[in-house]
Amino acid sequence: MTHFATQFMNKRENIVTEAIDGTVMASGGRLVRLDGYPHIRVVLRADWDKSRVALVSGGGSGHEPAHAGFVGAGMLTAAVCGDVFASPSVDAVLAGILAVTGPAGCLLVVKNYTGDRLNFGLAAERARAFGLKVNMVIVGDDIALPDLPQWRGLAGTLFVHKIAGHLAEAGHDLAAVTEAAERVIAGTRSIGMSLDTCTVPGSAKENRIAPGKAELGLGIHGEPGVEQIDFAGAEQAMAAMIEKLAARTEDVPCVALLNNLGGASALEMSVLTHELLRSDLGQRIKLIVGPAAMMTSLEMRGVSISLYPLTPEDELALCRDVALPAWPGCRAVGPAVSVALPDGLSPIRPIPSPHKATREFLLKCCNIMISMESDLNALDAKTGDGDTGSTLAGAARALIGAIDHLPLADHTQLYRAIGLELSQTMGGSSGVLLAIFFAAAGDAASSGLTLRDTLMAGLERMQEIGGAKLGDRTMIDALYPALSVLDDGLAAATAAARKGAEHTATLQIARAGRAAYVNAEKLTGHTDPGAEAVARLFEALGS
Amino acid sequence: MTHFATQFMNKRENIVTEAIDGTVMASGGRLVRLDGYPHIRVVLRADWDKSRVALVSGGGSGHEPAHAGFVGAGMLTAAVCGDVFASPSVDAVLAGILAVTGPAGCLLVVKNYTGDRLNFGLAAERARAFGLKVNMVIVGDDIALPDLPQWRGLAGTLFVHKIAGHLAEAGHDLAAVTEAAERVIAGTRSIGMSLDTCTVPGSAKENRIAPGKAELGLGIHGEPGVEQIDFAGAEQAMAAMIEKLAARTEDVPCVALLNNLGGASALEMSVLTHELLRSDLGQRIKLIVGPAAMMTSLEMRGVSISLYPLTPEDELALCRDVALPAWPGCRAVGPAVSVALPDGLSPIRPIPSPHKATREFLLKCCNIMISMESDLNALDAKTGDGDTGSTLAGAARALIGAIDHLPLADHTQLYRAIGLELSQTMGGSSGVLLAIFFAAAGDAASSGLTLRDTLMAGLERMQEIGGAKLGDRTMIDALYPALSVLDDGLAAATAAARKGAEHTATLQIARAGRAAYVNAEKLTGHTDPGAEAVARLFEALGS
Repeated sequence: MTHFATQFMNKRENIVTEAIDGTVMASGGRLVRLDGYPHIRVVLRADWDKSRVALVSGGGSGHEPAHAGFVGAGMLTAAVCGDVFASPSVDAVLAGILAVTGPAGCLLVVKNYTGDRLNFGLAAERARAFGLKVNMVIVGDDIALPDLPQWRGLAGTLFVHKIAGHLAEAGHDLAAVTEAAERVIAGTRSIGMSLDTCTVPGSAKENRIAPGKAELGLGIHGEPGVEQIDFAGAEQAMAAMIEKLAARTEDVPCVALLNNLGGASALEMSVLTHELLRSDLGQRIKLIVGPAAMMTSLEMRGVSISLYPLTPEDELALCRDVALPAWPGCRAVGPAVSVALPDGLSPIRPIPSPHKATREFLLKCCNIMISMESDLNALDAKTGDGDTGSTLAGAARALIGAIDHLPLADHTQLYRAIGLELSQTMGGSSGVLLAIFFAAAGDAASSGLTLRDTLMAGLERMQEIGGAKLGDRTMIDALYPALSVLDDGLAAATAAARKGAEHTATLQIARAGRAAYVNAEKLTGHTDPGAEAVARLFEALGS
Repeated sequence: MTHFATQFMNKRENIVTEAIDGTVMASGGRLVRLDGYPHIRVVLRADWDKSRVALVSGGGSGHEPAHAGFVGAGMLTAAVCGDVFASPSVDAVLAGILAVTGPAGCLLVVKNYTGDRLNFGLAAERARAFGLKVNMVIVGDDIALPDLPQWRGLAGTLFVHKIAGHLAEAGHDLAAVTEAAERVIAGTRSIGMSLDTCTVPGSAKENRIAPGKAELGLGIHGEPGVEQIDFAGAEQAMAAMIEKLAARTEDVPCVALLNNLGGASALEMSVLTHELLRSDLGQRIKLIVGPAAMMTSLEMRGVSISLYPLTPEDELALCRDVALPAWPGCRAVGPAVSVALPDGLSPIRPIPSPHKATREFLLKCCNIMISMESDLNALDAKTGDGDTGSTLAGAARALIGAIDHLPLADHTQLYRAIGLELSQTMGGSSGVLLAIFFAAAGDAASSGLTLRDTLMAGLERMQEIGGAKLGDRTMIDALYPALSVLDDGLAAATAAARKGAEHTATLQIARAGRAAYVNAEKLTGHTDPGAEAVARLFEALGS
């Protein structure tokens, strides 16, 4: 059994009709299709009244969103869709022409491939025999093989769709629309590059491009590029494309279209945008379309760049908004403007203030934490990585070292300062969580709450951000019950903390923190080291 | 030497800043960034005046266009970008908050990952210490692990950005914007599926998913899905996702967001759109966002679907246009409307008309073509596939068979009828080209041109569509000189055709047709079979 690449498709022969139906259904009523399945696959503007010049394009499928994605007011009137990478039949093209062409006539925009030229060409003849005015332009923008008398049609076709589409929508006549299309074609130059091949539906993927290589001068049908080059990063890849373009374009202001051939990530496309715009050639790019996947070669991991010299008239046509999600718009290119960082990133050091009782209490807490370092480490080693004691003791030592710089006389400022100190010295998730606890407590203290309510506010915020709840086998299991009864005195709080800590030894599932990855059997019988630390702190404070 | 996957990037450590600069440069002046590279990577609206509630999101990079692509009027005010798949630092988030937050306050929209929760959470605390009003919501929309108390944040985040962004832009206060965000989060359900893994920059690609398999219940950081399933096409894949969604959503009208995780082709995405919308669950999807790459996992070949129950209020917010190319719009879902095929596809059979002289001339031409079948085949075999004689003879026999149905008395109709006959019986490129020749000649004849000019008009159109020029080693090398002197009589035309045909034997390059693929040495000394056919036809007509 041959293993084809796994793809989001059903039967190969239905892929185009299913895709068209999906596109029509999700178009918000913008699109309809002709009732000619399976052979005639034509997508039309739903609102078309034949009052102006019709613009019809198409060709093989596999280039989505081209061409159905560009059907709509201001771009195409209809798209005629062939099988993947195969020209539509003469009858299909003729059906498209006949469906949209009124007295103003029709312009066919055809990419330069033999099958498309012939089938669109003969369909045009047939339509003319009905007395219809039909013109046809052939887009050849690929400079990969500059000596070929006929350049291939690539994503530069989109410039034709947009500019001719704008004029047609604005009511210009067939001659004017055709002339504009020919002017755009004459001026457009494109080049493609890819890092990998594409996967033609129903076929095995050809692995033609080795890792570390790129193909330059690429069509949009998976055919090999003109040359394979060594790939040495985005900058060099862009330079290779730019070298080709620079040799075939004039040094005049232009618009660039940066096209994703389908499989490059958006992150990569932005890196390439940066390389293009900061290059020498980039200095003459005044407008840009994309980066976006507009004329794809299925899921090929590649790009193409198209350039077209700007005139004020074409700029207007290109920049006019159209309500087509596939068209990313045409925008002015500018510098990567940076604005100054806001004030406040270097935390305001609180003004130290002495307060003997607070100082002594804080030192006592810190020393308690330091005294239980090895016990807590041993406990943590049974269910975790054995560093809870050291983490807490380290934070306590840092706090002791900073104690003379703390605003001991101002509770609000003190909580915040402790939070800041912990976030900078403690590290890891627990450091951030305790920093959040103290910062939120500081906010609460400024509202004049009781000690219990102040600390509870910190706990709530810590739970909200950290996501741990009572029973999740964390320090909260001791801290929450203790704070709840803090108004009843230290003894009550201490008893509640101990009870809560003991309870964690019966919890078989840890839902938060590192212990969440530990088997239930290893947890049972051991109190959570964070909860144990809380209980011991209360016990030591009361002793 | 380790071979990493080839990607459009330069140094790994610069990928995010380069991508941001590319995005800002191509934003048409919509975006600026904070001057805090390399650690502080914050993208801002260029036009922000702090007059309304600011909306700040972000997280690890690698999800482009999220989040920088959604910064702009009506969506985000700022995006804070971490390294690829890594949370931004507390300082970076704080910088973002401080840069955009005015008296109206700021809402942080954070996807539910520990690093993001903690760093955004602590940054919020720090900002509050400056007296700023900062709220934070945590998006958890992933139903892949429904029993987890905390669902992961996936592309459903975009619903939050759009709805909260709309309200903020419209001037609602922080409480209202926060409440809306929480309502959207509570109602949103997402599920992901992928056919392949993604490639983390600078790392080798993990080939975890075998061909024929798919992963269901996927995050956006390349982590394994909850389960691997056998892949049996787009319909089954969509059914598997829908089953999960149906179990976790109510049967009420909803909006769907169809997200490309980065590497699925646009063709595949449209097929999936079709499957989604035609499913049972699809019947309650009233609006759709996408298909589009909105929240990617680099270039992962996968999708996610997000559902959210609709209210008129949210519908208004979702459907309001924003000038952001990354936002594909929210559109009404409808049927795949098909409209009737146009008339004219079954070619009008011309009314037969007798004309003795024309009939005899046509029969003579046909019999000449038939008589040279084997000679032309033999000649073609030297440079091509040996069927030129049979192709022409076959067409001649078909024409003889149809002769009593032809409009022999009307030249215009006769040319067109011959063209139609040839296109239907001859096949291949040459059939289409000769059909174009006769169809165009028919048009010309209706304008009352001379025989020479009529035929020349056909030849010109054939050249225009086919692209072959004089000297390209085709039948044109005999036909063009012969028609050029047709007004001087048959003898002159015959001599010119012969001279032209002989000349093709000296042409070492064939630029059109099948012989273009043949080596020069094989061509030299043999006349082109098409040109030879033309010369022999003239010679036989004159004899």
